Amino acid sequence: MGKNVIFIGIIHSPYKTRADAPSQGKNEISEIEISKEFEKGLKDIEGFSHLHIFYWLHESKDFTLSVNTPWDDKPHGLFATRSPNRINPIACAVVELIQRKENRLTVKGLDAIEGTPVLDIKPYIPRIDAKSEARIGWLSEKNFLDERQH
Amino acid sequence: MGKNVIFIGIIHSPYKTRADAPSQGKNEISEIEISKEFEKGLKDIEGFSHLHIFYWLHESKDFTLSVNTPWDDKPHGLFATRSPNRINPIACAVVELIQRKENRLTVKGLDAIEGTPVLDIKPYIPRIDAKSEARIGWLSEKNFLDERQH
Repeated sequence: MGKNVIFIGIIHSPYKTRADAPSQGKNEISEIEISKEFEKGLKDIEGFSHLHIFYWLHESKDFTLSVNTPWDDKPHGLFATRSPNRINPIACAVVELIQRKENRLTVKGLDAIEGTPVLDIKPYIPRIDAKSEARIGWLSEKNFLDERQH
Repeated sequence: MGKNVIFIGIIHSPYKTRADAPSQGKNEISEIEISKEFEKGLKDIEGFSHLHIFYWLHESKDFTLSVNTPWDDKPHGLFATRSPNRINPIACAVVELIQRKENRLTVKGLDAIEGTPVLDIKPYIPRIDAKSEARIGWLSEKNFLDERQH
């Protein structure tokens, strides 16, 4: 079995460059266009209010194991950050599904930039995926959370 | 930029085969061994109670766009299921971090089988990742949730 990934679609985003994109999901609307050959896989997706979108961070640059973030003046280990510059440039975001039309999904809260390749879509299931009480380590002392409130 | 992934570590699991593994995370303890060359990236990870583990479903078989699941007698679109047989065999699980010792993380709730390659680790941040009120479509009529209660 190979270790290659296949692009199954593309993200159309209001964020045109990395500089435009928020550090984590805001509430902008994006469109996910799935290749026609995979459209049949979207059957019944409308029933889910939230989805996991897996995408390829195609503008990811060389990673470093020690990362400086906008949230702290001290560096942290790469795996203790959500830096987009990763060893494997893969992201998974939780988005709200607004509408599906054929092979196009309108979603809210995706922080990917225009032209980002899509790897997969899976339904979000809160009993498995939601851990509301999770502790957030070094981020808890920062004003990280304030900026992303609705 | 290539479209291939790198394995950064390996999962040691009590589940030895696909038949052993639960359909979604239960509460077994697993160990994630990160390659020594990437150990520095784990700095400060201890502060987070929950992590996203990205892994490669190395025993994933040929996908189909219409999927029969254990939860329903009707098929559903691949993207409306969490079938492990996917176009890109990538999974992302939320686990509880129990302990870190050097390049080894002891975690709870990982449904990967023994020998599964690791792609990435990111901190779980509830304000971004937890959507407790999400609707779950066709699964809501099934007894899907009962089996995974703690």
